[in-house]
Amino acid sequence: MTTETFAEFEPDFITGLKAIFEERIVFNKVLGLKILALTPTGVTGRIDMRPELIGHYTHNRLHGGVISAALDAMAGLAVMAALGARHMDEEPLQRLHRFGKLGTIDLRVDYLRPAIGQHFLLTAEVMRLGSRVASVRMEFRGDKGALLSTGSAAYIVS
Amino acid sequence: MTTETFAEFEPDFITGLKAIFEERIVFNKVLGLKILALTPTGVTGRIDMRPELIGHYTHNRLHGGVISAALDAMAGLAVMAALGARHMDEEPLQRLHRFGKLGTIDLRVDYLRPAIGQHFLLTAEVMRLGSRVASVRMEFRGDKGALLSTGSAAYIVS
Amino acid sequence: MTTETFAEFEPDFITGLKAIFEERIVFNKVLGLKILALTPTGVTGRIDMRPELIGHYTHNRLHGGVISAALDAMAGLAVMAALGARHMDEEPLQRLHRFGKLGTIDLRVDYLRPAIGQHFLLTAEVMRLGSRVASVRMEFRGDKGALLSTGSAAYIVS
Amino acid sequence: MTTETFAEFEPDFITGLKAIFEERIVFNKVLGLKILALTPTGVTGRIDMRPELIGHYTHNRLHGGVISAALDAMAGLAVMAALGARHMDEEPLQRLHRFGKLGTIDLRVDYLRPAIGQHFLLTAEVMRLGSRVASVRMEFRGDKGALLSTGSAAYIVS
Repeated sequence: MTTETFAEFEPDFITGLKAIFEERIVFNKVLGLKILALTPTGVTGRIDMRPELIGHYTHNRLHGGVISAALDAMAGLAVMAALGARHMDEEPLQRLHRFGKLGTIDLRVDYLRPAIGQHFLLTAEVMRLGSRVASVRMEFRGDKGALLSTGSAAYIVS
Repeated sequence: MTTETFAEFEPDFITGLKAIFEERIVFNKVLGLKILALTPTGVTGRIDMRPELIGHYTHNRLHGGVISAALDAMAGLAVMAALGARHMDEEPLQRLHRFGKLGTIDLRVDYLRPAIGQHFLLTAEVMRLGSRVASVRMEFRGDKGALLSTGSAAYIVS
Repeated sequence: MTTETFAEFEPDFITGLKAIFEERIVFNKVLGLKILALTPTGVTGRIDMRPELIGHYTHNRLHGGVISAALDAMAGLAVMAALGARHMDEEPLQRLHRFGKLGTIDLRVDYLRPAIGQHFLLTAEVMRLGSRVASVRMEFRGDKGALLSTGSAAYIVS
Repeated sequence: MTTETFAEFEPDFITGLKAIFEERIVFNKVLGLKILALTPTGVTGRIDMRPELIGHYTHNRLHGGVISAALDAMAGLAVMAALGARHMDEEPLQRLHRFGKLGTIDLRVDYLRPAIGQHFLLTAEVMRLGSRVASVRMEFRGDKGALLSTGSAAYIVS
């Protein structure tokens, strides 16, 4: 996915969410994590390969921690988008405040194939958004679409 | 734990392992991950808080991804130490090559409490080292010893 | 899915696998787990609700342990089918012996919605079949197709 | 552990909890799961080997699903004991009603060694009891104390 898609969200919400996610959550910036698509049921992001992200120096392989960190961030973003869609009655800024209340309960990552490539695409889909807990599934793909890692995570929402 | 402990490993093995882990695995350097202790059954590491590692800007809270990335790295190191102890008959350099063959199969992290503090201590303990798979449990603690996160991971060894 | 599908596998392999899975693995029989479909990339099974499987007596809800046990069993079966397809050169009986060497490394189950219904459908899909480790994703659905639980698991194969 | 320990809980609470856990949660009865100890921070249980629990017929090995099911049940019991201790001001019966509101969010089990033996001991320890979510770690041991499996789980409490 190369074009950006932001469903029915207002420009203010999108701009605010991108600013928080890509800039103010400093470690996401270290990861170079960018939002490509944002919809009530799922989100897509991208990471470009950079030397700082290497885990396996002999193969220029992405560090597994970059994958777990980025999948966790994307899953949180997916929950945020789902919450944003559920509360369209609230002002964009008010909805953005919900991000601060989001907390990861736990995370699982399965490493299927070595993460080698120029860039990587990440997707996260909310399997269930409850009043207190959200469950999300994530995928981490290579620049040719190969599935490199999958993830599952639970979030506390309020 | 503040003093370094390196069991019976030779200086060459320790020096080589620290060089690989703290310097050549570039993303570990981004995390600022340092080895404090290394024994056949477990390892201890430390991360000092830095602005780049922030996940929650309003609370200067550590990014969950730093925790998952660092726990994965520490668990891999624990497996490496266990393998190193099992193959003391090999030359240090030969044993270090095993690091390149290590692969994370999957990882789980439970986030118990907000990671806020000046520094953090990480421990990883090998629960079982098989001929093909190793299972590890990890803990992430605050500068006062509070348990902030726990983890479990499986590694392919050969 | 209600009709049975068994891809290109020989009758002897199918009959043998069903006998092992549904009868000789005694606890699968306790669960009432039946194989509906078996292909190299995935499998489908079914469980009919019975009083012995109740976890929550006030709601006649299926015990979470029935879900984790059945998803683990189905994931192992999916790996077995993938191995069976990879070794079609071997005699059916020879391929069936591989079942005995299969071992679960670890399992994760996410409980999304209460499991209430007359029967349940389970699917397992092999995400990657390596020479030593296989990774599988599973789904547990209600009699109307609602997604009730999801799972991820890793298996040692040899 | 062979003697029963029930901390400061009233006989009514213990009797009621054992009746719910060992009898009314029917699938726990199928597992033959018995409570040995119950304290605010952790619980211990026991399962005696029976033919119905076999997963691997050639080795009379316990089915992995018995382990995941029993560890999930024990973890829920540990949360129940922690909740019971937090609400000693409530009547025993009132506290027991909290059991019905408990829900497993997700579960991880690591299978370390084959589960073969006459009986098995299970322990579950609450790592954190929040107002909405509880995190638990579990262990599954053989009749000689060997660690056979470990688990981690999250529960919704209210």
